[in-house]
Amino acid sequence: MKISSYAAGAWYQSPAEGTLVRDAVYGEPVALVSSEGLNFKAMVEYARKVGGPNLRRYTFHERAAMLRALAQYLQARKEQFYALSYKTGATQYDSWFDIDGGIGTFFSYSSLARRELPNARFLAEDDALTLSKQGTFLGRHILVPKEGVAVHINAFNFPVWGMLEKLAPGLIAGVPAIVKPATQTAYLTEAVFRAMLESDILPEGAIQLVCGGIGDLFDHLNEQDNVTFTGSAATGRRLKVHPSLVARSVPFNMEADSLNCAILGQSVEPGEPEFELFVKEVAREMTVKAGQKCTAIRRVIVPKDKSEAVLEALQQALAKVVLGDPSRQEVGMGPLVGAQQRQDVLAVVEQLKAQGCEVAYEGSHTLLGGDWEKGGFMAPTLLYSPRPWESAAHDLEPFGPVATLMPYENLDEAIALARRGQGSLVGSIVTYNRQEARTLFFGCATHHGRMLILNRENARESTGHGSPLPLLLHGGPGRAGAGEELGGVRGIKHYLQRCAVQADPTTLMVLSEEYVRGAQVKEDLIHPFRKYFEDLEVGESLLTHRRTVTEADIVNFANVTGDYFYAHIDELGARDSIFGKRVAHGYFLISAAAGLFVSPAPGPVLANYGLENLRFIEPVGIGDTIQARLTVKSKTAKDPRPGERPTGVVTWAVEITNQEGKTVALYDILTLVERREKAAQA
Amino acid sequence: MKISSYAAGAWYQSPAEGTLVRDAVYGEPVALVSSEGLNFKAMVEYARKVGGPNLRRYTFHERAAMLRALAQYLQARKEQFYALSYKTGATQYDSWFDIDGGIGTFFSYSSLARRELPNARFLAEDDALTLSKQGTFLGRHILVPKEGVAVHINAFNFPVWGMLEKLAPGLIAGVPAIVKPATQTAYLTEAVFRAMLESDILPEGAIQLVCGGIGDLFDHLNEQDNVTFTGSAATGRRLKVHPSLVARSVPFNMEADSLNCAILGQSVEPGEPEFELFVKEVAREMTVKAGQKCTAIRRVIVPKDKSEAVLEALQQALAKVVLGDPSRQEVGMGPLVGAQQRQDVLAVVEQLKAQGCEVAYEGSHTLLGGDWEKGGFMAPTLLYSPRPWESAAHDLEPFGPVATLMPYENLDEAIALARRGQGSLVGSIVTYNRQEARTLFFGCATHHGRMLILNRENARESTGHGSPLPLLLHGGPGRAGAGEELGGVRGIKHYLQRCAVQADPTTLMVLSEEYVRGAQVKEDLIHPFRKYFEDLEVGESLLTHRRTVTEADIVNFANVTGDYFYAHIDELGARDSIFGKRVAHGYFLISAAAGLFVSPAPGPVLANYGLENLRFIEPVGIGDTIQARLTVKSKTAKDPRPGERPTGVVTWAVEITNQEGKTVALYDILTLVERREKAAQA
Repeated sequence: MKISSYAAGAWYQSPAEGTLVRDAVYGEPVALVSSEGLNFKAMVEYARKVGGPNLRRYTFHERAAMLRALAQYLQARKEQFYALSYKTGATQYDSWFDIDGGIGTFFSYSSLARRELPNARFLAEDDALTLSKQGTFLGRHILVPKEGVAVHINAFNFPVWGMLEKLAPGLIAGVPAIVKPATQTAYLTEAVFRAMLESDILPEGAIQLVCGGIGDLFDHLNEQDNVTFTGSAATGRRLKVHPSLVARSVPFNMEADSLNCAILGQSVEPGEPEFELFVKEVAREMTVKAGQKCTAIRRVIVPKDKSEAVLEALQQALAKVVLGDPSRQEVGMGPLVGAQQRQDVLAVVEQLKAQGCEVAYEGSHTLLGGDWEKGGFMAPTLLYSPRPWESAAHDLEPFGPVATLMPYENLDEAIALARRGQGSLVGSIVTYNRQEARTLFFGCATHHGRMLILNRENARESTGHGSPLPLLLHGGPGRAGAGEELGGVRGIKHYLQRCAVQADPTTLMVLSEEYVRGAQVKEDLIHPFRKYFEDLEVGESLLTHRRTVTEADIVNFANVTGDYFYAHIDELGARDSIFGKRVAHGYFLISAAAGLFVSPAPGPVLANYGLENLRFIEPVGIGDTIQARLTVKSKTAKDPRPGERPTGVVTWAVEITNQEGKTVALYDILTLVERREKAAQA
Repeated sequence: MKISSYAAGAWYQSPAEGTLVRDAVYGEPVALVSSEGLNFKAMVEYARKVGGPNLRRYTFHERAAMLRALAQYLQARKEQFYALSYKTGATQYDSWFDIDGGIGTFFSYSSLARRELPNARFLAEDDALTLSKQGTFLGRHILVPKEGVAVHINAFNFPVWGMLEKLAPGLIAGVPAIVKPATQTAYLTEAVFRAMLESDILPEGAIQLVCGGIGDLFDHLNEQDNVTFTGSAATGRRLKVHPSLVARSVPFNMEADSLNCAILGQSVEPGEPEFELFVKEVAREMTVKAGQKCTAIRRVIVPKDKSEAVLEALQQALAKVVLGDPSRQEVGMGPLVGAQQRQDVLAVVEQLKAQGCEVAYEGSHTLLGGDWEKGGFMAPTLLYSPRPWESAAHDLEPFGPVATLMPYENLDEAIALARRGQGSLVGSIVTYNRQEARTLFFGCATHHGRMLILNRENARESTGHGSPLPLLLHGGPGRAGAGEELGGVRGIKHYLQRCAVQADPTTLMVLSEEYVRGAQVKEDLIHPFRKYFEDLEVGESLLTHRRTVTEADIVNFANVTGDYFYAHIDELGARDSIFGKRVAHGYFLISAAAGLFVSPAPGPVLANYGLENLRFIEPVGIGDTIQARLTVKSKTAKDPRPGERPTGVVTWAVEITNQEGKTVALYDILTLVERREKAAQA
């Protein structure tokens, strides 16, 4: 029954008896948890000396492939996690958020890393910046993996998702982790962690686990490490000011429970789809995970004249919720994590009642399985705050199936009430009136990390108020802790050190593995389109033959494309145009440039599938002579899918110049180029 | 002699006597500084209620124009600032960094805001994200100005630049500021602040000034505010954990002095340009601002076999530095900010000597004007650390004209020594060997916010080791405080709240003022190219007539462009291509699409000057029929320069489809469109 930690490459079971954790449904003992005796210093050193170097050997794409493989491995074993999840009080639906949601975050981060990051060990951000007139002094931001450890401190409510959503961006970045689950549900985290280890997919040292307290862990952290925390604001604030973290400026990312709201638009009438959607969303948020979600709706802000209708509809919706043993299909809401948690929530409800909230609805105590006394059961409780400006519901958080309904007079008041939460993770706006949505959104945005605008058009596909998504920011200002998690590549960057580099163009090209204008190019007798992916070098360049643009070209191009824009075709109109004369079509220039640089016979360059950053800089008139330079800007090998030709993406910088050497157009083209080695096998 | 604060719209002179500040050169009294009696609560409320709303009325571009006007106003008055600057101990060269550098930051932020931000009151970041299969549920990050106040706490060494580099991004963002200069040089900050107020360019409430202590200011801050701090690590850490800031998660951005290094590459030989550059850079960093720079080189890391040559060259360079009254042209180095500062620095030098550093050079006490005793004069002092691994020079910072030379055996040791600083603002690498530069850069990047790679190619245009630039990150991990200032738009985003919004496409279009695929478009009988900028609406759309692509089109296009790539022209080659058949040129498709959507006669659309995000999605074969949809994606009005036609940029989303309704190509085109109103005047 004792669960273990995993430290410095070995499982560790504390000799201490540990904290007894009971199952949330029947109050039966489930696990004993203790980290006593763990050598935290050795854990940090192991992460630094083994895990970090092992992870950093790989590219972002290679680590993304590991995440994908891990997600597949966990998915194949999820039934065992579901079985444990029921013991935490989670229904199947709740567990789906936790377990499938967590695995989905791995899949999602794996895809986005391959889509948005280079297949490299570092990330060159944005474009190179010209810092001087002659262009010999350039700058760029290069991001490299921090060479420390990420300490992930998780809350009890999402033992799987909590771990995986923090691991995903950190592992993609190349930073090893020490995962510290909350004691109450650590047994589920431990099971998933154990499966990840068994899969043998991650390199040695990539992940470690602390079940129990964190002892002197923070004393061993330094500027290369970081801490991410999810949990109560009180604990978060205490940890954030830990002297070791402050002394070494260890970044501390905090995500705390907040008093999130949902606002029903003033324009919504009972009977309209948005009215039903609002009621359904609030009822769901109150009962999913028995309301134990940092994102749950706590404040239900509705137009005064519709508050009775909303109350009634909510009462009906909540009355349908069946409480009981969450492993039973018919059960819609399980217990809180334990009897103590119920005590805590009921105490907050009493405080709210003492400060002017009325009980508008309290569910029955009937159970379909489970033990009310020994488990953590609590009935859904809807409060009503007749004078919302005096309500304690803006400040006190009942971390259970409790929400407070507040009436508003007009949109300004709705906005002010929403902001009264002093910073939230998420707020919802339910309306089909888009100007109303706009007013409410811009009124509330400063106080929210995320806002959901729900209406009949997106309801079917909406992931709901309470669900953080991998691509969107999870975090919020003020009470929500002012942290930022997830948000796509943003989440990964928390684990990278951004370093601004200043250099000459050629050195910058060597560092960033990307050609920049002004860097020394390499020219070769072999046309670059005749080379396989592996043989092309960044900076390799072709200067084409020239072509004089004639009146016939312009006419012929107009005839074949049908583009008779006056600036090209109409001598009188063109004279008054911003060009002052007839000019060649921009599209002709880039097409003619292709005519200059393309090598026509079949070869490794399979297709030009895109184009970026095109700017027409200087007009080209009749009689002007153009020339193109084609240079390998960057390369990224692609993971071939089964049956696909092995290829890579080569981005080429193209510059078209005229007879005076002036730049006429600049752009990048994206091509798919065959790989030599694997091509030989195929 | 008493200097004032500026609070809640009025100048305030404290009744208290205040702290006496003396001029750094002769020790004469210059100013009395006190903030006693200031009502900090009223200042915060004034910023919230007056300054914030006033600033937020404008767009990013309009606020950028204010910054530009302010910069011009200050530039016209800079002689008076120079006169005061000499009293702080700054030479003309030093003052140029502080005063012209600060004004330059305003110019630079003004330009980048107009270049990189929309002419709007909020910023929609990145692209819209599709969050569901059917595309009815989208996400995007929208950034809005925080509705609080930015508190800027500055160091004594850059009384002008320090204020302006913090104000620039915050004012662009639309957030009012309370500026708190360091007492020792507050008189110069006050003079510049006074000029900004006199200019009457900023709206009421945008800026306030605290000369003296900050009293209970922090107690009044909340989640909408933020604090940026530059100064000593000890003070920074103390302020960062202020209970009010922690309780309300007020972001605290810290930029602390660090033990920055410069590394001479192993490949560099005495007599080579890089050797000279290295010596010059180190000597300059030791003496500019008398070494009172958070970015100054403190650790000089050189190959062991060249350390004597470097020492000798540095001694020669330092011997040439003339000390004295900084207002005199011949003087190369002024005093420290005061006699107390000299005492502090000398004490650190003594500690370093006690812990194994030898004095390799100490400049003479000869002065050209100034008073050695009463002023803050100190001779440049070069230390040598024969056993660098035991050196205290990695931990103790002499904030004056002092650096320590350390020999290294090989590149690994050079890297390890650099990292021993535990996080620095900046490090320099001087070498012409690019592989060496690469090794050193990637070895050190995790520990640095910025790295300068200096060689013969960029030396003439390099802005040097010590100069933070507006476009590049200023900050660093660990000892440097782990903050991020400047860095272009990044710096502005610190003052914006990022809110992820989830909505259906049409609502997202209404919120973000940008068309997204799937949103309801509006069609009109008038061709959109016939409309002026003001009359075009986001989401306005044209569905063109169709065109069947024929073999003749492909042949004609190849003939006019010269692009005979086999996939278009060679039946045999094309059969084996990834397309399996001859396909139309991608450039033909976008050119023919223009032929479909262009309105040929002269009109408000002046030019198509660029193209972005082009992706060819489905190949088009002979006999396929294409059609294009052109939709207004976004609009940004441009500030017309004198003599220019008033225009705006309209970005159009183009989608080409085939006869099956499949998307063939997607891209955005950028056009310049005339404005109606001003066009009538012109």
